[in-house]
Amino acid sequence: MMNNLLDGIEEILLMGPGPSCVPPEVYTALSRKTLGHLDPYFLKIMDGIKEMLLQTMNTRNMLTVPISGTGSAGMEASFVNLVESGDKVLVLVNGVFGQRMTDVAGRLGAEVSTLEFAWGTPVIPETVEKKIRQNHYNIVAVIHAETSTGVMNPVAEIGAMLKGLDTLYLVDTVTSLGGIEVRMDDWNIDALYSGTQKCLSCPPGLAPLSFSEKAVTRLNARKTKVPNWYLDLSLIANYWNSKRVYHHTAPVNMLYGLYQALLLILEEGLENVFRRHLKNHMALVSGLQEIGLQMLVKEPFRLPMLNTVLCPEGVDESSIRRRLRNEFKIEIGGGLGPLAGKIWRIGLMGYSSREEDVSRLLNALKKILQTR
Amino acid sequence: MMNNLLDGIEEILLMGPGPSCVPPEVYTALSRKTLGHLDPYFLKIMDGIKEMLLQTMNTRNMLTVPISGTGSAGMEASFVNLVESGDKVLVLVNGVFGQRMTDVAGRLGAEVSTLEFAWGTPVIPETVEKKIRQNHYNIVAVIHAETSTGVMNPVAEIGAMLKGLDTLYLVDTVTSLGGIEVRMDDWNIDALYSGTQKCLSCPPGLAPLSFSEKAVTRLNARKTKVPNWYLDLSLIANYWNSKRVYHHTAPVNMLYGLYQALLLILEEGLENVFRRHLKNHMALVSGLQEIGLQMLVKEPFRLPMLNTVLCPEGVDESSIRRRLRNEFKIEIGGGLGPLAGKIWRIGLMGYSSREEDVSRLLNALKKILQTR
Repeated sequence: MMNNLLDGIEEILLMGPGPSCVPPEVYTALSRKTLGHLDPYFLKIMDGIKEMLLQTMNTRNMLTVPISGTGSAGMEASFVNLVESGDKVLVLVNGVFGQRMTDVAGRLGAEVSTLEFAWGTPVIPETVEKKIRQNHYNIVAVIHAETSTGVMNPVAEIGAMLKGLDTLYLVDTVTSLGGIEVRMDDWNIDALYSGTQKCLSCPPGLAPLSFSEKAVTRLNARKTKVPNWYLDLSLIANYWNSKRVYHHTAPVNMLYGLYQALLLILEEGLENVFRRHLKNHMALVSGLQEIGLQMLVKEPFRLPMLNTVLCPEGVDESSIRRRLRNEFKIEIGGGLGPLAGKIWRIGLMGYSSREEDVSRLLNALKKILQTR
Repeated sequence: MMNNLLDGIEEILLMGPGPSCVPPEVYTALSRKTLGHLDPYFLKIMDGIKEMLLQTMNTRNMLTVPISGTGSAGMEASFVNLVESGDKVLVLVNGVFGQRMTDVAGRLGAEVSTLEFAWGTPVIPETVEKKIRQNHYNIVAVIHAETSTGVMNPVAEIGAMLKGLDTLYLVDTVTSLGGIEVRMDDWNIDALYSGTQKCLSCPPGLAPLSFSEKAVTRLNARKTKVPNWYLDLSLIANYWNSKRVYHHTAPVNMLYGLYQALLLILEEGLENVFRRHLKNHMALVSGLQEIGLQMLVKEPFRLPMLNTVLCPEGVDESSIRRRLRNEFKIEIGGGLGPLAGKIWRIGLMGYSSREEDVSRLLNALKKILQTR
């Protein structure tokens, strides 16, 4: 017998920028017996997932599916289906994930413009309004919850500005969905995607995605084929709708996990879930301030599920994270890009947003900072 | 409480073209506690997966990773990283998956040529040789085990012909890997991918992939960026090598499953695994012939893990499959494309290649055919 590393996996409290902790019911779901991807019973489970995604996203869009890849595959799928070479795309950038959008769209031949905002501050709607009045864009894209900075962007306001324009509105809700309100239809969003490993508290591996009718019309009117067979939504849609045409073999057990994760959220009730996220965020922030730590983001723009904390001068942030992981079995995240070495990122996402865990983290942090 | 469909999942004996049955150890692995994708212990598990993939593929390639998507994402990743607009690609087609390759490569701007062979017969090496002597191709691509027809293609022979040429050899081993021998280095293969849901007997969701040094050189010499951020192997490689640069959040629990699945195969021993597949295939074929059924493919070209059986004249093949599923809890597959309605596809893949299950299927088929 070879040494099986899986036997040595310890339970770590996941309070980084994702993955988040997974509830026991979701682990059970993952290990249910695999069914064929065209099995009549599995098709019912697919319909259940679709129905629950519609509720969670607050949309009625027919084209609502989990993409067979992680959250970044959702970003890729959104752009590759909607962009044709030479299309004008405006990306609102205030962190790593906005930057990633410019890279993704640029590789697809889009003519990408950006509006940049300081990291740790939100996108300013007035600046966006000026830009979209001066230029025509095929797509305007923004991150709802910028995971690299902990900032919430004014997605609803920007959506309102785009109403009536011939522009598609593409929004990343990877970190927001299931943690704060997302109202796809009311906010005029045309392409929305998320990931399973944040507030949905299912392991990473799927990217829930939805396209409005306007986005589907654009997709169907393409002059060129989608330059990505695997993520071609016109093909994927025919597997998820009543035609049930085989495209690729769906990730069956991951879909069980997503089904269960969505069920838990809807059973708790979206409003209750959001309230819980907010409450634990407030407790964390006040606890951090008690031990002398400051937040990166100003109050009205803070994300409840992703808290960015300034590392005090002279403290080696990575050594603190290492001690948290090794001595206290808690994972938190470090900064990315210009924020590397300067901040911690504390996730209170989904099943990781629990009162007792906030206390556990605060106590551990206090001990470590006192014994440096 | 809402109705939870997952509670109603029955155990189905999966003898279709994939997914195959999953061993209990792999289900346990899937539900191990999620770790962060940069957790030091998870990085060890990643190294373990890589090491076991090298053994299973018989290669020493540095760039050997599981792609975060299903087998088709492996196909997409192979082409999108190696093809630049105008490149000449020769695809050897004798079934659905060869056709899919032409679609994938064409969407990426390749100038695609095909050599077509009758479905149910193998690619003929002499025909290929003539073609590659007359023309220069950047890539020659073929399916090792054509899942739509049950034919094994002469992958080693074609590889030998390409030796010394400036051509990359791209081989799909989705259905073959872990069921028959695959020798990536000896066979001169430059890009190879597979899927987890066939002979590896892990649920669908990952695509093991390997690139030779020659393929990596081509990737690094691209004039244009890979037009797919999510599948850009130069970025993915830096997460799987010692640099550990974050790219996208790895599908942690699916990777646990793959780790366990590979461990089981290597513990049994590759030679023993192949022998088991062959033995159960022989038992199935002789059992089928006893009840008067004929195979589509001639003997030396039959795949042991994917058996294509001619449906007798006047029999509605889908009604037989429906009765197998509903009365006997066994899934088998139907035909695709021109073979729809004409054949059954019986998978004996990985954990579904068991003596007792061959008997169970044969008995069920016999009963159904007698009571029509």
